[in-house]
Amino acid sequence: MSAASTAPSVPLPFRPAILIQKKRDGGTLTDAEIQFLIAGLIDGSVADYQLSAFLMAVYFKGMTPEETAAFTRAMLDSGERYRFSDIPGPKVDKHSTGGIGDKVSMVLAPLAAACGLVVPMMAGRGLGFTGGTLDKLESIAGFDVRLSKERFHEALRTIGCAIIGQSESIAPADRKLYALRDVTATVESLPLICGSILSKKLAEGAEALVLDVKVGSGAFMKSKDQGRKLAKALISTAKKSGLKCRALLTNMDQPLGTAVGNGLEIVECIEMLRTGSGAPDLKEVTIQLCALMLEAGGLVRNVAAGRKLAAERLADGSAWKKFQQMVEFQGGSTRMLHDLSLFPKAAHVVEWKAMKRGFLTKMDNEEIGRMIIDLGGGRKKTSDTIDPSVGFVFHKKLGAKLVPGDSIVTAYLPKGADVRAWEKRFQAALQIGPQRKAVPKLILETL
Amino acid sequence: MSAASTAPSVPLPFRPAILIQKKRDGGTLTDAEIQFLIAGLIDGSVADYQLSAFLMAVYFKGMTPEETAAFTRAMLDSGERYRFSDIPGPKVDKHSTGGIGDKVSMVLAPLAAACGLVVPMMAGRGLGFTGGTLDKLESIAGFDVRLSKERFHEALRTIGCAIIGQSESIAPADRKLYALRDVTATVESLPLICGSILSKKLAEGAEALVLDVKVGSGAFMKSKDQGRKLAKALISTAKKSGLKCRALLTNMDQPLGTAVGNGLEIVECIEMLRTGSGAPDLKEVTIQLCALMLEAGGLVRNVAAGRKLAAERLADGSAWKKFQQMVEFQGGSTRMLHDLSLFPKAAHVVEWKAMKRGFLTKMDNEEIGRMIIDLGGGRKKTSDTIDPSVGFVFHKKLGAKLVPGDSIVTAYLPKGADVRAWEKRFQAALQIGPQRKAVPKLILETL
Repeated sequence: MSAASTAPSVPLPFRPAILIQKKRDGGTLTDAEIQFLIAGLIDGSVADYQLSAFLMAVYFKGMTPEETAAFTRAMLDSGERYRFSDIPGPKVDKHSTGGIGDKVSMVLAPLAAACGLVVPMMAGRGLGFTGGTLDKLESIAGFDVRLSKERFHEALRTIGCAIIGQSESIAPADRKLYALRDVTATVESLPLICGSILSKKLAEGAEALVLDVKVGSGAFMKSKDQGRKLAKALISTAKKSGLKCRALLTNMDQPLGTAVGNGLEIVECIEMLRTGSGAPDLKEVTIQLCALMLEAGGLVRNVAAGRKLAAERLADGSAWKKFQQMVEFQGGSTRMLHDLSLFPKAAHVVEWKAMKRGFLTKMDNEEIGRMIIDLGGGRKKTSDTIDPSVGFVFHKKLGAKLVPGDSIVTAYLPKGADVRAWEKRFQAALQIGPQRKAVPKLILETL
Repeated sequence: MSAASTAPSVPLPFRPAILIQKKRDGGTLTDAEIQFLIAGLIDGSVADYQLSAFLMAVYFKGMTPEETAAFTRAMLDSGERYRFSDIPGPKVDKHSTGGIGDKVSMVLAPLAAACGLVVPMMAGRGLGFTGGTLDKLESIAGFDVRLSKERFHEALRTIGCAIIGQSESIAPADRKLYALRDVTATVESLPLICGSILSKKLAEGAEALVLDVKVGSGAFMKSKDQGRKLAKALISTAKKSGLKCRALLTNMDQPLGTAVGNGLEIVECIEMLRTGSGAPDLKEVTIQLCALMLEAGGLVRNVAAGRKLAAERLADGSAWKKFQQMVEFQGGSTRMLHDLSLFPKAAHVVEWKAMKRGFLTKMDNEEIGRMIIDLGGGRKKTSDTIDPSVGFVFHKKLGAKLVPGDSIVTAYLPKGADVRAWEKRFQAALQIGPQRKAVPKLILETL
């Protein structure tokens, strides 16, 4: 008997080009085939140029729910998976698809912890025209978003919440794939978005997840239909991956709350946590998301009970206390929390006023986000540093009645800014009409 | 004045991801944008993984005729362009999309030269399930397909034809892109095929081109519609690129001529050139292509006159003389041309016979091609060497009436071949039915 004939029979390895072709032609890949592609991305047996062709084929042909779940699982399996089963209490997280002035996480994480949940929140940086939770938190001097697994565990055990960045050991395939998607025009694909979000949430140790899918001019999903599609794909994939999941569709045709800009948003959060009140839309979305989290975690029998508990914990100062503990644990300046004048100051602080009588009927919310970036409050390339002082605080929201001279916004501009030019750009992003128009509903749908 | 404000204003470079997105969304790229992508592939400013995503987007969204011409031009401009304006006579080439037993080039190039054309033919290796002209020619001991530009020029000047491989300096972008397409499932795209073929033909110095677009079970294009689409795209792109172009659609539901396999095909060509006769289908396609080349080159007033001239030059031995001169010039053994017994001999030469009465109604021609590869007469990977001795010589073609015992084929098999198993596989590729079926037309269309 020859050596060859006594060798164990091993299955032929998959050929990347054949798998790309299968997807290109609308076929359905098996779990093993998807696992092969993602593992190959990490070990180098599948080339970047093959992955990017595959991603473009997925952009055009999509993935079945089963493929999306396998894709999520493959990315999860590419790295470490945190488990916090020794910590009592349900582990529940929230994920937002991103919007202008979306500062919910900073209020919600300590609020949910104050209600008895454990919130292992891994958040992101600014992306496209929207800001990022990590960038906002770093407006607090010393705040460290890079906790070790052990410190993260300790924060969850002793406080019940922490907000950190994605560690190197978590879903490395997702990090690599995301970088590839970013430069190959393959970001906007539902199954790829689902896999990216959910692999990280599964890895961070969440048992349930509540999604805030933003819809409107200041969100990636411009229409309710698009948003609903994404929410449904996320919920379906999450369930197949053993993650309980609910979702809100919320409106993003104007900034959420009053402040836009990293430091200004943190200040708005601190004020809401300290006083228990603030912008009604920010509060409403936060309370509703917290209620869904509490229900998903099994701490309340229904959403109504969840809303009641959340409102109490926001009002009684226990969320505020959790926030202070979290900031202290993560090395942030607690002095700043009690003395807001310590936040970085913008060079120019100016009021911009209504120039005609009418109603605020529309806002180009994406343009507001782009202005923040152009002011230095966001990144154009990953190496850019962020100016936490710039931004806007709105005094009027959609539907407001205006007479000339009414203050619409306080603008915080950097040194050297051409104030007149910025005001012109800002005013151009607003529509003031003679007739009041229906203000879009804040919470569009609960799925 | 600061240094920055006195700097000359340069246009912003294109961003690859934006161009990929434009194509992904069905947009039309400008000449400059296409030029940027192809030049970027060569200088490294556009990454392979971006090109492959772009190629997949082109696969789905296509290219306009203008984009295809710009793409062709960009690939042409990536390398050297041969010009033979000092050699008198029209420079006309032929390109076939490839088929089983397609040995036309070996007869046609010397025939066209004998009629007064200059034929600067750059040919290819075996691809997929079809053989390659270069591989076939290398069955002649010593035949060198890698002539320098100077030697190529000399061959064209003194003989009027030469058949060589694509030199390193010709369309390097096409070579790089083709390698990328091969491993990213983006080969089958009309504009990409057009650009690849035509950039090389423009670079080799042809002024006119005649296409033989093969259609049928032994061709890449299985249907007449597909073939016509490709022919039209090629003609339109060629014209936009200043290359005169005609095309034949010819049937590929059975091998062309009688022989399939590298050495066997050369022997068939030698016999046709030497005697002026042979398989009617091979002769007809060759004469018709030559007539179109002569018309395109302006040496005859119409195709009928071209057919007459071509038939004369094949019959009077002048094509045979050109072939011998070409082989000698390219270092090939002229002794073999006169003593066919010097061609490599297969280990097994067997007759396979009809096992039942009926008509030969169908042939899986692609399977015939795959058998040649599996016998060692083609490559599974680029590093494989080719056995020139293996193959088939057919004694019956589609429509033939068979009685049991009639010899269908002589098979030339390599040492160690399981003759019974090969016969079984061969017989399975044939359909013998009780009723005569219409034999597909050989020349389906002239465009």
